[in-house]
Amino acid sequence: MSEESCIFCDIVAGKIPCYKVYEDERTLAFMDVNPVTPGHVLVIPKTHYENLIEMVPGDLAAVHQTTQKVCAAIFNSLKPGGVAVLQLNGKGANQVVMHYHVHLIPRNRPKDKLKILEWAPKKGNTRSIKSKQGKIIEAL
Amino acid sequence: MSEESCIFCDIVAGKIPCYKVYEDERTLAFMDVNPVTPGHVLVIPKTHYENLIEMVPGDLAAVHQTTQKVCAAIFNSLKPGGVAVLQLNGKGANQVVMHYHVHLIPRNRPKDKLKILEWAPKKGNTRSIKSKQGKIIEAL
Repeated sequence: MSEESCIFCDIVAGKIPCYKVYEDERTLAFMDVNPVTPGHVLVIPKTHYENLIEMVPGDLAAVHQTTQKVCAAIFNSLKPGGVAVLQLNGKGANQVVMHYHVHLIPRNRPKDKLKILEWAPKKGNTRSIKSKQGKIIEAL
Repeated sequence: MSEESCIFCDIVAGKIPCYKVYEDERTLAFMDVNPVTPGHVLVIPKTHYENLIEMVPGDLAAVHQTTQKVCAAIFNSLKPGGVAVLQLNGKGANQVVMHYHVHLIPRNRPKDKLKILEWAPKKGNTRSIKSKQGKIIEAL
């Protein structure tokens, strides 16, 4: 399944070129042309799903197998201090292209001075944590 | 397999309590006690792996099935504008606990004013992108 006016579906269909690094039956991995850091790769399912909630088990497993393969290749070739794996769901989480995709972002902190993906742990309010826990459990 | 002096292995073993939201044979999901936003959940494999590279296929698939389940429950119960799924590998990527874990971070941008996980797309240098592509492909 592909969706009209989806840039990633167009890449899968070969209508738009990409800097491909890996491809198999279910997945495609290619360089992000707007890299957060050098070596930034995207992994997508070839089938169109808007987000994590829509993914079928086979494609979900396949995407993360490919993510693992590419992550190992990034470590071995670019020798970063770390790799952040990031997947955003919904415009409220800054998802821009509405086709499920996993970002692989090589990092060299503190040298890369990247403000994203950094936070200082701060103890939460126990009452609030328990309240959210209860709500999530109810919805499971 | 569990590792000595690993706080997440101690949580799996029941030696340290947690605010559990979901558990199955291979995985455990619980509230992060230092939440980045209210409703921040962690999903881990019960077996100790330091990072994505070490994961075996069965546990990798299971963790992402659980992540999907919990993500749907967060959307349905807390009604955030989005959910960021984040997994850090290596100290150079700000990994703090050295037991593979997936963060589920509910977001309501721009209201939550969270600086992490935000970036403005900026066109990369094509020569640099092609160079990294070549190196990653060689390592695959």
